[in-house]
Amino acid sequence: MKKIINRPDQVVYEMLDGLVAANPGKLKLVREKKIVLRADTPLKGKVALLTGSGSGHEPDQVWYVGKGLMDAACAGEVFAAPTADAVYEATKMVDGGAGVLYLIKNYTGDRANFSMAAEMAQMDGIRVETVIANDDVAVKDSTWTAGRRGVAGAILNYKITGAKAELGASLEAVKEIAERVNANCRSMGFALTSCTTPAKGSPTFDLGGDEMELGVGLHGEPGRKRTKIMPGDEIIDLLMENVVGDLPFKSGDEVAVMVNGLGGTPIMELYVAFRRVAEYLQQRDIRIAKTYIGEYCTSLDMAGCSVSLLKLDYEMKGLLDYPVDIPLKVF
Amino acid sequence: MKKIINRPDQVVYEMLDGLVAANPGKLKLVREKKIVLRADTPLKGKVALLTGSGSGHEPDQVWYVGKGLMDAACAGEVFAAPTADAVYEATKMVDGGAGVLYLIKNYTGDRANFSMAAEMAQMDGIRVETVIANDDVAVKDSTWTAGRRGVAGAILNYKITGAKAELGASLEAVKEIAERVNANCRSMGFALTSCTTPAKGSPTFDLGGDEMELGVGLHGEPGRKRTKIMPGDEIIDLLMENVVGDLPFKSGDEVAVMVNGLGGTPIMELYVAFRRVAEYLQQRDIRIAKTYIGEYCTSLDMAGCSVSLLKLDYEMKGLLDYPVDIPLKVF
Repeated sequence: MKKIINRPDQVVYEMLDGLVAANPGKLKLVREKKIVLRADTPLKGKVALLTGSGSGHEPDQVWYVGKGLMDAACAGEVFAAPTADAVYEATKMVDGGAGVLYLIKNYTGDRANFSMAAEMAQMDGIRVETVIANDDVAVKDSTWTAGRRGVAGAILNYKITGAKAELGASLEAVKEIAERVNANCRSMGFALTSCTTPAKGSPTFDLGGDEMELGVGLHGEPGRKRTKIMPGDEIIDLLMENVVGDLPFKSGDEVAVMVNGLGGTPIMELYVAFRRVAEYLQQRDIRIAKTYIGEYCTSLDMAGCSVSLLKLDYEMKGLLDYPVDIPLKVF
Repeated sequence: MKKIINRPDQVVYEMLDGLVAANPGKLKLVREKKIVLRADTPLKGKVALLTGSGSGHEPDQVWYVGKGLMDAACAGEVFAAPTADAVYEATKMVDGGAGVLYLIKNYTGDRANFSMAAEMAQMDGIRVETVIANDDVAVKDSTWTAGRRGVAGAILNYKITGAKAELGASLEAVKEIAERVNANCRSMGFALTSCTTPAKGSPTFDLGGDEMELGVGLHGEPGRKRTKIMPGDEIIDLLMENVVGDLPFKSGDEVAVMVNGLGGTPIMELYVAFRRVAEYLQQRDIRIAKTYIGEYCTSLDMAGCSVSLLKLDYEMKGLLDYPVDIPLKVF
């Protein structure tokens, strides 16, 4: 297995140890439950944002814990939801009296465990609300979900909703904007290669040397169809037709664009892809107000990318500009 | 070939088009010469910083063009130095009267073409100085260099020297700090897989399924030795012995640490690696003042990473904190 790894059963713990070591004074780690929290939590009077998912999607989720974004995140084992017990524990730790919003992606395991944790926390008198991102237009149901999956567009939701919560909004207002962002966000991706989990040590699915998976899921689950590899512009046009056509996005709309690398795709290729995204939108008079290109929600070492569009309103644009202080940074 | 690409001979141009499209108003592109400049250049009275190299190392170099960092960068074809003509042209465009510092990495092609451009610019009366990063301790000479190679540690040099120039220092002072940073910086990396160039379409070198290349170069050129894949901690210990032992770094030193992904390695693994780097340094009472973990100087889709250490002084620490406004960002 071609990974920088010691023991597969320790890789998530060692990753979290590295994360905390790289951010002294900024994060708290409950190691045995794999919970990462802002060091200053609970924040009295602030609505706490809590997320979580299986590991293997880094920087999602734990790299988004910090001022202006998440109060805490629960990391599961690779591609496995965090336990209800861990989510419940995190909920109690982050609640500052103003309630907790769970902002998660639509996967069956995550939904079940966050739902159970919400019930337990509510019995303790903690107010908990949940918003579930389901931005992926590729498939209606999948092997991992009932309904559409949540993919990288959810990160734009975290960013906007995180700013709203940081600015002191009520639980109702924070939930409202998270739902509004989700309703206006659409994504679709594709894979050129499978990913390899540390536990299995070999590709999670087979893809021929000349094949790609259109509409692939974040765990390598099947998408819409398998096809021969196409030139980059044709792939992007196909994604854009589906993403733009679904909302639909219209002439005159202002959008945030995310081109999200799935883990194994170089920056060079993400910008070749974005170039075509920009051309596609310009031809339809859809205006790009904000651009995010890089790795935001990955599938370990999978090659490929996703494109997300978010139709912006004035409030969302302002909140996207709000500064964050999180482990994910350049300098 | 598993890449998001249209035509291999157009990939660098299309990447640059994407870069400029993603940063409206901030960059200028001289497309036929593959020069990217800050939109506000030339800056009167500011020493201009100019760099360049073959493409395929993204975000190095063109993603570092912006306030607080590079005034311009020349992109070559993939793994091929920019032409002397392009460097000369860029030099004329960025000079604001205070001179130009070339800050490049030690590769034969880059050295030759930047040297030729410097001569041409000097004949025009432009003051040009050059500092050549050679932080890689892996090999004394290589297939691509006479002397040690420059690798990811050079990015820490760009960051510090960029701040110094932004703050209005003279050409002599800017050159002095670039030389000081280079003298205090050491790096070493390894590859788990080869990279694949768009033109060739297949791996540039063969590496067995259970093998790694210790001390690999940024173009896949041979390093110190080929060996069986080792557990992550053993690999990192080996790199650290060589990096720490070379300067040598000593108890009480304060350092900046960079763990640089080579393109195909997930964030999860980079943080597993950093965790061990931090342990190694703590055991030797070498204090980490600044941490940079991510992709700073890559080799297309190569899996693996490098570790760089920079022994800091008070001025360097301050300059590392100076803000930048560059295309490479998260939010």
